Amino acid sequence: MRRLLQEIRHNPLLWLLVFVPAVFAGERLQPEAHTLLFVLAVLAIVPLAALLSHATESVAAKTGDAAGGLLNATLGNLTELVIALTALRAGQYMLVKASVAGAIVTNSLFMLGASFLLGGLKHHVQEYNKAAARLQAGLLFLATVALLVPSTIAAADTTGDSTFVQTLSVGLSLLLIVAYGLGMLFSLKTHKEFFGSTDHGEPGEEPWPMAVALPTLAAVTVLVALVSEVFVASVQEAAEAFGMTPAFVGFVVVTLVGAAAEMASAFAGARKNRLDLSVGIALGSASQIALFVAPVLVLLSYVLGPAPMDLQFWPGAVAMMLIATMTAALVINSGRSAWFVGVLVIMVYLIFAMTLYLLPPRVP
Amino acid sequence: MRRLLQEIRHNPLLWLLVFVPAVFAGERLQPEAHTLLFVLAVLAIVPLAALLSHATESVAAKTGDAAGGLLNATLGNLTELVIALTALRAGQYMLVKASVAGAIVTNSLFMLGASFLLGGLKHHVQEYNKAAARLQAGLLFLATVALLVPSTIAAADTTGDSTFVQTLSVGLSLLLIVAYGLGMLFSLKTHKEFFGSTDHGEPGEEPWPMAVALPTLAAVTVLVALVSEVFVASVQEAAEAFGMTPAFVGFVVVTLVGAAAEMASAFAGARKNRLDLSVGIALGSASQIALFVAPVLVLLSYVLGPAPMDLQFWPGAVAMMLIATMTAALVINSGRSAWFVGVLVIMVYLIFAMTLYLLPPRVP
Amino acid sequence: MRRLLQEIRHNPLLWLLVFVPAVFAGERLQPEAHTLLFVLAVLAIVPLAALLSHATESVAAKTGDAAGGLLNATLGNLTELVIALTALRAGQYMLVKASVAGAIVTNSLFMLGASFLLGGLKHHVQEYNKAAARLQAGLLFLATVALLVPSTIAAADTTGDSTFVQTLSVGLSLLLIVAYGLGMLFSLKTHKEFFGSTDHGEPGEEPWPMAVALPTLAAVTVLVALVSEVFVASVQEAAEAFGMTPAFVGFVVVTLVGAAAEMASAFAGARKNRLDLSVGIALGSASQIALFVAPVLVLLSYVLGPAPMDLQFWPGAVAMMLIATMTAALVINSGRSAWFVGVLVIMVYLIFAMTLYLLPPRVP
Repeated sequence: MRRLLQEIRHNPLLWLLVFVPAVFAGERLQPEAHTLLFVLAVLAIVPLAALLSHATESVAAKTGDAAGGLLNATLGNLTELVIALTALRAGQYMLVKASVAGAIVTNSLFMLGASFLLGGLKHHVQEYNKAAARLQAGLLFLATVALLVPSTIAAADTTGDSTFVQTLSVGLSLLLIVAYGLGMLFSLKTHKEFFGSTDHGEPGEEPWPMAVALPTLAAVTVLVALVSEVFVASVQEAAEAFGMTPAFVGFVVVTLVGAAAEMASAFAGARKNRLDLSVGIALGSASQIALFVAPVLVLLSYVLGPAPMDLQFWPGAVAMMLIATMTAALVINSGRSAWFVGVLVIMVYLIFAMTLYLLPPRVP
Repeated sequence: MRRLLQEIRHNPLLWLLVFVPAVFAGERLQPEAHTLLFVLAVLAIVPLAALLSHATESVAAKTGDAAGGLLNATLGNLTELVIALTALRAGQYMLVKASVAGAIVTNSLFMLGASFLLGGLKHHVQEYNKAAARLQAGLLFLATVALLVPSTIAAADTTGDSTFVQTLSVGLSLLLIVAYGLGMLFSLKTHKEFFGSTDHGEPGEEPWPMAVALPTLAAVTVLVALVSEVFVASVQEAAEAFGMTPAFVGFVVVTLVGAAAEMASAFAGARKNRLDLSVGIALGSASQIALFVAPVLVLLSYVLGPAPMDLQFWPGAVAMMLIATMTAALVINSGRSAWFVGVLVIMVYLIFAMTLYLLPPRVP
Repeated sequence: MRRLLQEIRHNPLLWLLVFVPAVFAGERLQPEAHTLLFVLAVLAIVPLAALLSHATESVAAKTGDAAGGLLNATLGNLTELVIALTALRAGQYMLVKASVAGAIVTNSLFMLGASFLLGGLKHHVQEYNKAAARLQAGLLFLATVALLVPSTIAAADTTGDSTFVQTLSVGLSLLLIVAYGLGMLFSLKTHKEFFGSTDHGEPGEEPWPMAVALPTLAAVTVLVALVSEVFVASVQEAAEAFGMTPAFVGFVVVTLVGAAAEMASAFAGARKNRLDLSVGIALGSASQIALFVAPVLVLLSYVLGPAPMDLQFWPGAVAMMLIATMTAALVINSGRSAWFVGVLVIMVYLIFAMTLYLLPPRVP
């Protein structure tokens, strides 16, 4: 506990933890003040995500390479998963899908691009491990194809046969989880020598002992779940109050909130010329959400949701995921980066964000 | 003749030749037993395709480099061509198109991916000739663009003006055949030093003398044509009996039957660490079907078919061909392979196969 | 003036200048002879474009690296800009968009492919600066995404809300201009050592002194503007007289006319084994039109046009631009070229040209 407090004192991001009790207080006292509750929830999730991320890495560091990698890969996007599960239980499938699509696009464009840009402003040219980046891009490409099929091929050939889309979504989810598992086997076991330098774990931050990490992991997960409930309940009306479309909120705001902690790590790595770390976090996170979080949500919707969720996204989201994947695949091809590569990638993201921001609010 | 019998004794695949007379007997005795006839026809085509493939290679081996390459390139997919011609004469254009699209997708995804996987399970990392793979991928890309245009650009801008689509299909077919011819000129003549190591011809299998090869070629082609007629006549009803959609049958079953012999060669090459051979067969076969077989079918439909055939595919098929080409182009970019690359490519194929299997049978 | 006359005597292309007075005479005497006027205008624009191009380069050569590059980058497609502005003022937005899309496709496919082919027919294998080609391809990719969004994502999700498309087009235009500016900063200033060998400026042609170049620049721009007016006014009816669709005229004819001078330089460079020059002109010109000319036209339409112009293209044009960009990105990946690479790229262009030529004239 003292360790935790010490951490909090040193890390200004964690001062935001004060908003966690504020959310719960607000919810009790002003249950109708949606905009206020939304803002408080956003501010509360950011430090919780940072704690969760550090706790996961600490446990992973202690359990050895393979098991640690597995744990990191499974819990690395725990914040996103918990937020999405809350939205799932509330039956807000549109929000779930927007946040999944948004996480893929934001991680593979904004997080990657900003890492290139921030690193490039300090270092003239940066090199990174092409093999690792290509594996992640390949996984991401596979997932995009899987998400594209129900929306494109199926939609073109059927007149909204929902049983078909449902069965297909379950089948695709199982395929993606298998691919994700085999990808870990490949990169952590059979060919790990190719993925050597992508060492996760904050540079300079030492891992917590298990006695701190495990309880923190459990407690913070519960807190994230509770705050997420407020977040999900208020997001719709807060968006209207801010004049933002729901698509923009799901795609951009929810995603940035969920990924804030990872972004901090990725950007710090880029500034320290450890671009392997940044590219690994950005693309690894994107492919994890596409191949693990999204399929798990589909499968869990049969247990937790009011109705089964499918993998059919609105056409615009599919187009954005496809373009994001293609952009990432094109830029990592050379294994080198300079500031303008970051600008190009961020620009693609800005095009999407601008489109969603301006989109008339009726749809999607 | 003795040579042929000897070959048959050594190659278990050829024992299936017993099903050739069985098909003809079945057709005479039980003309309404479509499912039985379908199964017999499938089992009969597999060994005939193997014989045809070996006969073609034997003739090619005897006629010297350039002429041999030309022959191999023209007759290499003779089985597919004969099956498609039979379907063409029967006016089953949907089946023709599905088998063309299916052959492109199956060769560039399943055959390529399984070669990578089978080779990778035995060898840690495999290298292959990038130049040859890139040429084939480039040709495949060109063909995909040509097949995409009538379905996408034309469809978006016209309201089903069939004369336009027809004229365009003939023009595109001529363009593709010219491109295919120039591609052979390039790889067999002007720049053949770049394509050196992709030596076709079974490793370990010696070519037949001309006196065996030529009559075999002629006789087996006739047999394939006769069996194909039974196959095409029974496929529709057999598919229904098995609960498969026509799209699945055309795309997956017909293609696997037609390419069985080539797959055997490609997989054997991969296991022997001769990945050049495998990649050459897989992508070469795909590009040959796209740039030679498909255009020839369009042109021949004016002579043989009940009506002209065009190059307009259903949107799902176009999307699959495009994704297959992009996948192949992305993975061959590095010129290296490991088992997981194969998994990725096969997974894309499985996504398509699953979609087609689950597709409600009304369409396409 | 004597310098100019001397230039004209040595360059047969400039003999076509005789058609400039012919256009004005024709317009006065035969204002209804649209086909004649169209042909005269085409013949007159070609030498004017060549003069304009040389004048711009002469000024650029005198003003030093950064300012010269800036000038070249801004005025390099002055002919296209002036023609498009004339069409804009006449409210012919369809023609403006077709010529923008056509310029992107023609430069990145026909000019690039023909350079590869012409160079490859003389030299066995040619190498060029990958870094420069990749930057241009990256910029082009960004612009294609920007042009794709209003047509695809927006169209899929709204029912023709024109305010939205309008606002989005202005926002995207500003983004593209910023990206273009930063790209120049990158290639001319912060990382210019990577883009070294792409030296513009005609090999063998010496720059004019400022006293010739500046007045020529001004006078020829005015002449191009005047001839363009005749051109734009006659193009529609001339197209019908020739039996060509408006899409074909805008995409192919207008573009080839505007880019004739640049093509002469690109092809000459390729023959002299200076493929850096050719690739730089082809892709640089395409990306300049996409990131600078098109956005400037959108912004100027608020001042000059009868109504604001947006960036929404017809779906076929978007598909062509996307395929052209992907083709360019794929072929420049290796940094090497042989004649068949040129054939492949030209074939993609021919597929488009053929489609547009055959397209029933009602649309677009």
